[in-house]
Amino acid sequence: MQSSAKTSATVAPIAPSTGRVESLLARVPRAVRWVGGTDGELELLDQVALPGEVRYVRCCDVPAVIEAIRMLRVRGAPAIGVAAGFGFYIGVRAAAAADAESYRAKAERVAAELIAARPTAVNLAWAVRRVMRAALQETMPAASAARALREAVGIAAEDEAVCRRIGEHGASLIPDGGGVLTHCNAGSLATAAYGTALSPMYVAHASGRRFRVFADETRPLLQGARLTAYELSAAGIDVSVLCDNAAASVMASGAVQLVIVGADRIAANGDTANKIGTLGVAILARHYGIPFYVAAPRSTFDPACPDGSGIPIEQRSESEVGSMFGRALIPPGVRCVNPAFDVTPAGLITGILTEVGLIKPVTEAGIRGILG
Amino acid sequence: MQSSAKTSATVAPIAPSTGRVESLLARVPRAVRWVGGTDGELELLDQVALPGEVRYVRCCDVPAVIEAIRMLRVRGAPAIGVAAGFGFYIGVRAAAAADAESYRAKAERVAAELIAARPTAVNLAWAVRRVMRAALQETMPAASAARALREAVGIAAEDEAVCRRIGEHGASLIPDGGGVLTHCNAGSLATAAYGTALSPMYVAHASGRRFRVFADETRPLLQGARLTAYELSAAGIDVSVLCDNAAASVMASGAVQLVIVGADRIAANGDTANKIGTLGVAILARHYGIPFYVAAPRSTFDPACPDGSGIPIEQRSESEVGSMFGRALIPPGVRCVNPAFDVTPAGLITGILTEVGLIKPVTEAGIRGILG
Repeated sequence: MQSSAKTSATVAPIAPSTGRVESLLARVPRAVRWVGGTDGELELLDQVALPGEVRYVRCCDVPAVIEAIRMLRVRGAPAIGVAAGFGFYIGVRAAAAADAESYRAKAERVAAELIAARPTAVNLAWAVRRVMRAALQETMPAASAARALREAVGIAAEDEAVCRRIGEHGASLIPDGGGVLTHCNAGSLATAAYGTALSPMYVAHASGRRFRVFADETRPLLQGARLTAYELSAAGIDVSVLCDNAAASVMASGAVQLVIVGADRIAANGDTANKIGTLGVAILARHYGIPFYVAAPRSTFDPACPDGSGIPIEQRSESEVGSMFGRALIPPGVRCVNPAFDVTPAGLITGILTEVGLIKPVTEAGIRGILG
Repeated sequence: MQSSAKTSATVAPIAPSTGRVESLLARVPRAVRWVGGTDGELELLDQVALPGEVRYVRCCDVPAVIEAIRMLRVRGAPAIGVAAGFGFYIGVRAAAAADAESYRAKAERVAAELIAARPTAVNLAWAVRRVMRAALQETMPAASAARALREAVGIAAEDEAVCRRIGEHGASLIPDGGGVLTHCNAGSLATAAYGTALSPMYVAHASGRRFRVFADETRPLLQGARLTAYELSAAGIDVSVLCDNAAASVMASGAVQLVIVGADRIAANGDTANKIGTLGVAILARHYGIPFYVAAPRSTFDPACPDGSGIPIEQRSESEVGSMFGRALIPPGVRCVNPAFDVTPAGLITGILTEVGLIKPVTEAGIRGILG
């Protein structure tokens, strides 16, 4: 486990890596997996089929990877990055027997195609460029392709390790015999494994703590109902889904001792952009005196952004709110408001869990200390 | 307009009854209407068909009225009561030519059948019994049936008048050029006309105020998206639907200057049970310093219930949360939490609007004064 000397507060890590802990953690579903060696395939848990069906798709060419990214079969920035890294390898592998010039042209074409699959996904472009840069240090096509696979595996392993460390740092926050509320899906399905907000739950559960999770359904796209509920229950954790508007009632009943959510971007002062609804949950938690934690890797911090007012909020399609399964939920001609994210002020956040420890209280200095 | 001398605070009523105001108020959709004279029919706006289709059903026998109540074509306690009153008349009218004994037996059978349509709907039994009691003061069947129709018309007229007065007392709260947020449907479709929380908006709009309404969609049954959005837009009011979890974000943006909601039951101290999610909205409003009002007729107060802890909360079917249009929203085996209501403590309520004026601040003495 990594030192947390830089953090302004620490929690006692739990879950030493015993065989029992590892076997329980192995039950956590994976969104992305490389199956086989250099002639292997990319296996994705098809998140479009969830929750109705647990189906895996195997990708053995670039169009299949692009289709999976574009159709949201794989989603969550880190998971998309991991998938795209393997996608790049799959693309250049097909040209490993070609001459160096054709190989290089192919590599650049594959990278451009993958990056265009979801233009706004920063991790996608970052991962593809990183794998390509590493691969092109080798001049021989076969060696270059092999290097690409090692780099893609490395990205997946790093993301998994980061998430695992977030879980180890945060597991002791999980109330034994209590309740935890989370919003959206900041879980294994959005990362290489374990996730961010859900990772402390996996580690705590593997270490023997018993607790109940309340998963906000997270309208409009229901990532909580579909994805968080799936992965927690698959791992054997007691999870109940609630409509987002029932969170206050559940908190008022005394059933929740901890709230933990993920983050899309964290400003230099700790203001945190995350899925729409996070801000409301933070305000409710403050009202009821329930600790509210954000879990995110250091890569989520944007030190160039001084505070939350600088974080642009994507307004998504009105039809996400106004229809479901192709049927209208609203009368014709009525408008919908559909911000994808909201910004929770740092002052409402009890602490931010990272892979190197806990930032608590959430201050600009504490954040600078973590980012090093 | 009725005196508000008993209220602990008053608002200046607006909207004197001009022709223009009346013609604008005539645009407010009606859930229940009696069409014709003694040989007329009960017309219901089919709320099951909304928002896809605006369809009216005509009921000319008791089974049709029962079907409409049972299938939720008409819903909302006051609207159900009004419909059932007319349903009783329709039933006894069929026996108006019979002998007095057969007529009386028929009346009792009709009343029992109607009351059984939705056993927990208090207004239903109350309205049926009230119409039957009035009717049976006449011994001649034909005269008794005619009396039943007059009583049913009276119930509808009283409910409409109560709602209209709530609107007149509350209209000046609606911020001209501002935004109002509401939750669920406490509107014309739930009452004889105008509703409770929506009535001030109708009166303010008819009086020339311009404002924007944010309607929480109100999961799981989406009464805000389907019903509130329909009736406000039909009346020409600017309404936008948002997911319940976006309310904090919209409030943080400064777009909301008033929150107004209905009530299912109000305890003697002002604690208010209303649709699940109301409590969360009240906490958010307090956080942002936005006034939070409850609108309800005096019949909603339960002086026998000292505070909110005495109000039983119905737990509804998990499938309401876990599926939509017959498709699963959650993985198999995962539980849902589905409380139908929550209780907002009186301390979070800025004022309670009734047909005789505004209770502000919300105190036990203020409530006693209103109830007389």
